[in-house]
Amino acid sequence: MRIYDIISDKRDNKELTDEQIRFFVKGYTKGEIEHYHASALLMAIYLNGMTDRETVTLTKEMAESGDMLDLSAIDGITVDKHSTGGVGDKTTLIVAPIVASVGLKTAKMSGRGLGHTGGTIDKLESIDGFCTSLSPEIFIDKVKKHGICVVGQSGDLAPADKKIYALRDATATVGSMPLIASSIMSKKLAAGASCIVLDVKTGSGAFMKTPEDAEALSEKMVNIGKSAGRKVAAVISDMDTPLGKNIGNSLEVIEAVEVLKNGENSDLREVSLVLAGNIIALAEGISADEGIKKATAQLESGAAYEKFREFISAQGGDLRQIDDPSLFKQPLYSSDVLCAEDGFIGSMNAEMIGSASVILGAGRVKKDDPIDHSAGIILHRKTGDRVLKGEKIATLYTDSKESFDSAEKLIRQSITVTSEKIERPPLIYKVIY
Amino acid sequence: MRIYDIISDKRDNKELTDEQIRFFVKGYTKGEIEHYHASALLMAIYLNGMTDRETVTLTKEMAESGDMLDLSAIDGITVDKHSTGGVGDKTTLIVAPIVASVGLKTAKMSGRGLGHTGGTIDKLESIDGFCTSLSPEIFIDKVKKHGICVVGQSGDLAPADKKIYALRDATATVGSMPLIASSIMSKKLAAGASCIVLDVKTGSGAFMKTPEDAEALSEKMVNIGKSAGRKVAAVISDMDTPLGKNIGNSLEVIEAVEVLKNGENSDLREVSLVLAGNIIALAEGISADEGIKKATAQLESGAAYEKFREFISAQGGDLRQIDDPSLFKQPLYSSDVLCAEDGFIGSMNAEMIGSASVILGAGRVKKDDPIDHSAGIILHRKTGDRVLKGEKIATLYTDSKESFDSAEKLIRQSITVTSEKIERPPLIYKVIY
Repeated sequence: MRIYDIISDKRDNKELTDEQIRFFVKGYTKGEIEHYHASALLMAIYLNGMTDRETVTLTKEMAESGDMLDLSAIDGITVDKHSTGGVGDKTTLIVAPIVASVGLKTAKMSGRGLGHTGGTIDKLESIDGFCTSLSPEIFIDKVKKHGICVVGQSGDLAPADKKIYALRDATATVGSMPLIASSIMSKKLAAGASCIVLDVKTGSGAFMKTPEDAEALSEKMVNIGKSAGRKVAAVISDMDTPLGKNIGNSLEVIEAVEVLKNGENSDLREVSLVLAGNIIALAEGISADEGIKKATAQLESGAAYEKFREFISAQGGDLRQIDDPSLFKQPLYSSDVLCAEDGFIGSMNAEMIGSASVILGAGRVKKDDPIDHSAGIILHRKTGDRVLKGEKIATLYTDSKESFDSAEKLIRQSITVTSEKIERPPLIYKVIY
Repeated sequence: MRIYDIISDKRDNKELTDEQIRFFVKGYTKGEIEHYHASALLMAIYLNGMTDRETVTLTKEMAESGDMLDLSAIDGITVDKHSTGGVGDKTTLIVAPIVASVGLKTAKMSGRGLGHTGGTIDKLESIDGFCTSLSPEIFIDKVKKHGICVVGQSGDLAPADKKIYALRDATATVGSMPLIASSIMSKKLAAGASCIVLDVKTGSGAFMKTPEDAEALSEKMVNIGKSAGRKVAAVISDMDTPLGKNIGNSLEVIEAVEVLKNGENSDLREVSLVLAGNIIALAEGISADEGIKKATAQLESGAAYEKFREFISAQGGDLRQIDDPSLFKQPLYSSDVLCAEDGFIGSMNAEMIGSASVILGAGRVKKDDPIDHSAGIILHRKTGDRVLKGEKIATLYTDSKESFDSAEKLIRQSITVTSEKIERPPLIYKVIY
C-alpha cells in the first residue's frame, strides 16, 4: 500500500477502504508518512468529503492510536458530556453534579481554554487548591467514591488526532465536517464513557455558525458513537449570545454555583437541565422529558449542589470560596460599559465578547499563555432585553487596566441596539439521537 | 501575508492575487514555506483550478525564480520546440536542422528520458563523442556559429518549478491543467527563445489522453507564452501510436537521419515538417502553409541534412556513424515478435510499447538509472497496416536477453489485430495560435 494511491483515490473522490484509512492513521502517527503527504490528503478530504463509513473508520483508528481509558473498574454507568466550545459555557460544572447525584459516573478529562472559548480545567483551577492533575489510579478512585472527577488531559489519548489536528490547524483544513466529527469523537471513544451527550453549539460564538451545520455535525457524531457501541445524543444549543451572564474563570464558577443553589431561571439553567436530562435518559433508558424532570428534581432538592461541594472538596478545592464568592481572588480593576442609546439588545456577537474576555486576561491566544483567573465580563443585559441610555450593559474585570479600551470597543461592536424588541433565538434547536 | 490565508482562499475557490502567488513561489523556493503548506495548496489548486491570470502569474514567477537565459548575444530569431513527451518522438533531431537551415537559431536545453518517454539528450549521446555538457559561453557561441546547439539542462533554470514539480510528483497533484501548463512554460520562458512551438501529444502514449485535454492544455500554454511577449503556437499531434518506427536511442537517430536524407514519406516526416513549418511561420510572419512549404524545400534540397551533420560535428559527434549506421554500437541480442493471426493492426498502445523499450534497456525507471543506447524496438507494422500470421510485427534489441519475454508480452498486449481495416487517427489534430 502506498500513501500516494490513497491521496490520488481521495483526490478522485473515491471512497477509501478501511485498510487505506488504517494505513494513513498508523503511518502518520508513527512518522512514517510525511507531513506533506498528510496535508495533501487532508485537503482532498476537505474538498471531496468522506462517507459515513470512512468517517467511522477514521475515528476508530484515531481513538485506538493511543491509550483507551479503561473505566471497567467503576461500578455503574459511565457518562460524559462534551461541548463543541462556546463563550460563558460552564454547563459541565452544573451537569456533572446533577447526574452524579442520581448515581451516574463522570470520569472526565477536560481541556484548557484557547481563543475565544473557555475550558473547564481553567475554571476549576480558579478555586484555590483544586487539583486537576491526578494519577490514573486516584482519578478512577475518586470517580468510584464521589461519582465525579475532572482532570486535565494526560497520557496518550488519541495521539493520531493530536497530530492530525495540528496539521489541519496549520493547513486550513480544520473546517471539514467529517474531520471535525472524527476528531471530537476519537477523543470521546478513547475516554471510555458508555453514555455520551454532545452539546453542539451554533451561532456567532460557535464553530458551527448555522443550525444546519450543527445538525449535520451532530448526525455524524451520533452515528460514529453508535457505530462504536456507545449511547449518544447531541443537543444543538444556541451560542449566538454567550451562555449565562458571567464570562471568565472564577466568574463562571460563581455563576454555576448560583444555578446549583437553585437560583432563578436562566438560559444557563435551562441548557444544563436539558443536557443533564438527556444523559440520565440515555443511561436509564427513559424519555428525555422524564430525564429532564429527574434532573430538575435533583437541582431543586439541593442534591446536585451537595454533590458539587463533595466533588470540589475531593479534589482539594477550597469550599469556603464556594460558600462565599468574595473569597475568590479579586481583580484589581473594573469598568462599566454603558449603553449609548435607548432600545432593545438586538444581537450579541458571542465570539467578539469571548475575544474581549481574552483581552482582559481570562483566556489564551497561544497554548501556553498564562491566564488571569479573576478577569472577565459580567453581562447585565442580553439579547431581547430593554436598555436605556447610560445604563450598564456589562462590567469588565482585569488586572491590566490598559486592556479596558480595546475590550470595551469589542463589546460595543458586538452588541446591536434596535428600536423594536427582538425575540432571542431558541436555546435548544434540536436533540439528535 | 500568511501562507495559511493563501491556502484557505484557494480552498474556498477564490482567485489568488499576484502578490499571493509571488509570496508562495518565492517563499517555497527559499524554503521559508513548508512542504506541508505547499502540498495542501497544490491539492486545493488541483481540485479548484486556477484562472488564466493566476496561471500566467504562477508561470512568470516560476520562470523568474532562477536564471533567465540571455540569448540577446545571438543575431537572428531564437526559436524553440518543445514536446510534451511521447514514444519514438525524435522530431527535434529533424526540426532543429530544418529551421537552422533557413537561418533561425535553436539554443536548446533538453532533458533525459524518464519512464516510457525518451529524451533528446539520451538520443544524441548515442552518437560517439557527442558532448551535451557545454559552458554557457560555448553554448551561445555554437548557436551563433551553427544555428543549433543542444545541451543538457544545467544552471538554475526555474528552480521553483523543479521544487514544486517534485512535490506534485510525491503528492498526486501532477495532473492539473494549470500546473502542467505553468511547469512547462516556466522552463520555456526561462530558456529565452522568442518563438516557441509546442508539440502537444495526445493519445495512449501521451500525458494528455484525449484531444480535448490536449487542446485545453495547448490553449493555456499559448496564452501564457503570449502574455509573456513570446510568439507561440501549439501543434496537437497523435501519440496513440508511437511516432515513426524506431524506438530507442541510436535507433531513433538512425531513423531521423533517414528522414533528413529525404527518405520516404512517413508519419515522422509529416509531423516534423508541420512543426518546422510552424516555427518558420511564427518567426517570419508567414502563413503555416508557406512555412511548411519552406521546411519541405529545405528537407528536399539536402540543406537540412547538411545542417544536421554540421551540428553533430560541432558538438564532437562522430559523423562516420551518421553516414554509416552500422558503426553505432550494436546490441548483443535481437528477437522478432511475430503476428499470431491474419488481419489489420487496429491499435497500438504507445505507452506500453514505450515501457517495453524501457525493459529492453532503452529508458529509465528512476532518474539516475543507466541506459543502453543500442537497445530498443523497430516496429515493422503500424496501426492500419495489413498483417499476416507469422509475419514480423516488431524486432526487439537488447544487451540483456532475459528482458525479451516481458518486453514481447507487453508488445503483444499493446497491439490489437482486427479483421477489418482501421483508419489511423489524424496525425495532426489542430494547431493553436
